[in-house]
Amino acid sequence: MKINVEECARMLKEQDDILILTHAHPDGDTLGCGFALCRALLKMGKRVRVECGDPIPKKYGYLYDDIDTEDFEEKFIVATDVATLNLLGDLSDKYGSRINLCIDHHGTNTEYAEYLLLDDTAAAACEIILKVVKALGVEIDAKIAGCLYTGISTDTGCFRYSSTTGDTYRAAAELIDLGADNGKINRIMFETKTKTYAALERMAIEGMQFFCNDRICVITITQDMYEQTGSNEQETEAIAPLTRQTEGVEIGLTIREKTDGSCKASIRTFESVNAAELAKNFGGGGHLQAAACRFDCSVEEAKKLLVEKGRELLK
Amino acid sequence: MKINVEECARMLKEQDDILILTHAHPDGDTLGCGFALCRALLKMGKRVRVECGDPIPKKYGYLYDDIDTEDFEEKFIVATDVATLNLLGDLSDKYGSRINLCIDHHGTNTEYAEYLLLDDTAAAACEIILKVVKALGVEIDAKIAGCLYTGISTDTGCFRYSSTTGDTYRAAAELIDLGADNGKINRIMFETKTKTYAALERMAIEGMQFFCNDRICVITITQDMYEQTGSNEQETEAIAPLTRQTEGVEIGLTIREKTDGSCKASIRTFESVNAAELAKNFGGGGHLQAAACRFDCSVEEAKKLLVEKGRELLK
Repeated sequence: MKINVEECARMLKEQDDILILTHAHPDGDTLGCGFALCRALLKMGKRVRVECGDPIPKKYGYLYDDIDTEDFEEKFIVATDVATLNLLGDLSDKYGSRINLCIDHHGTNTEYAEYLLLDDTAAAACEIILKVVKALGVEIDAKIAGCLYTGISTDTGCFRYSSTTGDTYRAAAELIDLGADNGKINRIMFETKTKTYAALERMAIEGMQFFCNDRICVITITQDMYEQTGSNEQETEAIAPLTRQTEGVEIGLTIREKTDGSCKASIRTFESVNAAELAKNFGGGGHLQAAACRFDCSVEEAKKLLVEKGRELLK
Repeated sequence: MKINVEECARMLKEQDDILILTHAHPDGDTLGCGFALCRALLKMGKRVRVECGDPIPKKYGYLYDDIDTEDFEEKFIVATDVATLNLLGDLSDKYGSRINLCIDHHGTNTEYAEYLLLDDTAAAACEIILKVVKALGVEIDAKIAGCLYTGISTDTGCFRYSSTTGDTYRAAAELIDLGADNGKINRIMFETKTKTYAALERMAIEGMQFFCNDRICVITITQDMYEQTGSNEQETEAIAPLTRQTEGVEIGLTIREKTDGSCKASIRTFESVNAAELAKNFGGGGHLQAAACRFDCSVEEAKKLLVEKGRELLK
C-alpha cells in the first residue's frame, strides 16, 4: 500500500526494534538512506540496526563507524532504495517475505513491501529520507546530513546527471548548511582513486580500442591486468563511464574477464542506441543508456560479438 | 574602489557601449560571466560585446552563438573573473590601463580596475553576476541561466570542490528552475572529450610521474604532444584535476610547454598544502587548492623547481 511522508513518519514513530535493509552491491544512496534513518531513529531512543547482503566498501566507513549497534530480534523491517527483492542479494531469502516498509525512488519498484513510500521524481532515495527525518521531528546533525548528502551526491554523479532537479540542489544546500562536509565527501566518492585502481585505469586507457569509425569504444580488463596492478574486479565500477566520454562514441563497452575465463560486459550508450537492447542479444538487460551481459567465452570473442551487434544497431 | 552589488548595477544602468573582457585561456566561469552579463545588458537595449585574448573553445558555443554583435567604440570596460591584468593575455596592452569595472571572486584580485565588485566567498564569479543581473532588474531567461549555471558548475568541478557552499547550490537550483539545461551542460563540460583531447589525455596519463613517496604527482604537456595528438593548449583545462586523483597525492602539478619554450604550471592541492603559496614562490597566485604560475625555463627545469618547493611545503 502506498503511503506518504507523514504516514511513513507516523508509522516509524510507533515502531521499535527496527531493522533497515540496504541493497546488495551497496552504493552511496542505499547506505546513506540506511544510516541516516538509523541515526535518526537512534536519536529517538529506538533500537535499530542496518544490514547489507554484501560487505560495505571501506570508503563508506564514515557513514557508520561511530554507531554502536546491539543485536536484537527485529520487529519491523524497512528496505531503503531497494526496487526489487532480488536486489537484497543474500538477505532476500531471510527477510524478503516480511518487509514492512520500503522507501524508494525507483519507478520500477515491485511493491513487495507491506507499505511503500515512493517518489520517482527524486534523483536519490536520500532526498525522500530527508523529508521523512524532518517529519519525524529529529534534529538533523552533521552526521545525518553527511549520510544524506552522500546519497544525493553519488546517485546524481555529483549533481551531473539530467535527473538532478532544482529540488535536488536545494536539498544539498540544506544539508551543507546542516554540516555535511561536501568537499570531503565528494573527494572520497569522486576524487580518490586507490593506487591499484589508478594503475588499472591507466592500463585500461592505454589499451582502449575504437571501431566503426570511432563510434564504438572498447576497454578490456583481463585477469592479467589485475595481477599486474594489484587491483581487482571490485574496483572496476568507474571504468565503464570512460568508454563513453570520447566525442563521437555512441557505444562504450567494458569487457571484464572473470577468473573462470568467462566474461562480463558493461554497455554505456547515448540516446542513439538502446543499451538494454544490445545487452538483450546476449541474455542481459538494464536501462536505456546503461546495461550489462555475460559471456561464456573469451574477452576477445565477446568483443567481436558485441562490436558486430553494435555495428548493426548503429546502421 | 570597492563597490557592492547595488552600486555595480546602478553604474551599469548608466553606461552604454560596454565592452566585457574575459580572461585569456578562457574557462566556463569567465565566459559564463561575460555572456550572461552581455545578454542582460543587451536586453536593456545597450550595445555590448565580449572579447577574449584567446580563441574560445568550440564546446562553449552555446553560450553565445545566437548573439548578434556589432562593432562600436567602447565607452565602458568591464572585466569578469579576471584577478590580475596579465590574465587578460593579449588584451592586456590594449585595454589594461582603462578598465572601469571588475567583477571577481578571487581574493588575490589586484584592484587594477577603477571600481571592483569582489566577493571571495563565491565559489564562482557567476554567482556574483547572478546577483548583479537580478539587481539590474533583467528577467533571467533560459539562455542567461545556462551561461550562469555553466560558470558555477565548471568552477566547482561540477559542485565537487569544498569551495561549493549552500549558497552555490541554491544559485544552481534557481538557475535550473529558470531553464538552465543542467544535464546537457554538464555532459558537454564534463562527459565529452574531443578525439584530440582524448588522445592527449591518454598520453598525459601514460607519462604521469610521482615524487616524494607519491605525495606529488606531475603531468607534463609538451608542444610535441600537441603535434602528435592534434590537440592544443586550449584543450588542456581538464588535465590539471587528474594530477590530484590518486590516493595519497597532496600536490598535483600540470606543466604545459608554450610555443616559445617557456611554460605554465597549474597547481592542485588538498587542505594540507596552500596552492597559492606554492605558486607565489614563482610569481604566480590563485586559490587555496588551485593556483598557477609561469616559468621562463623548460618544462623539465620547472618540474624540478616545483617539486623541490613542494617537498619543502610537505615537510
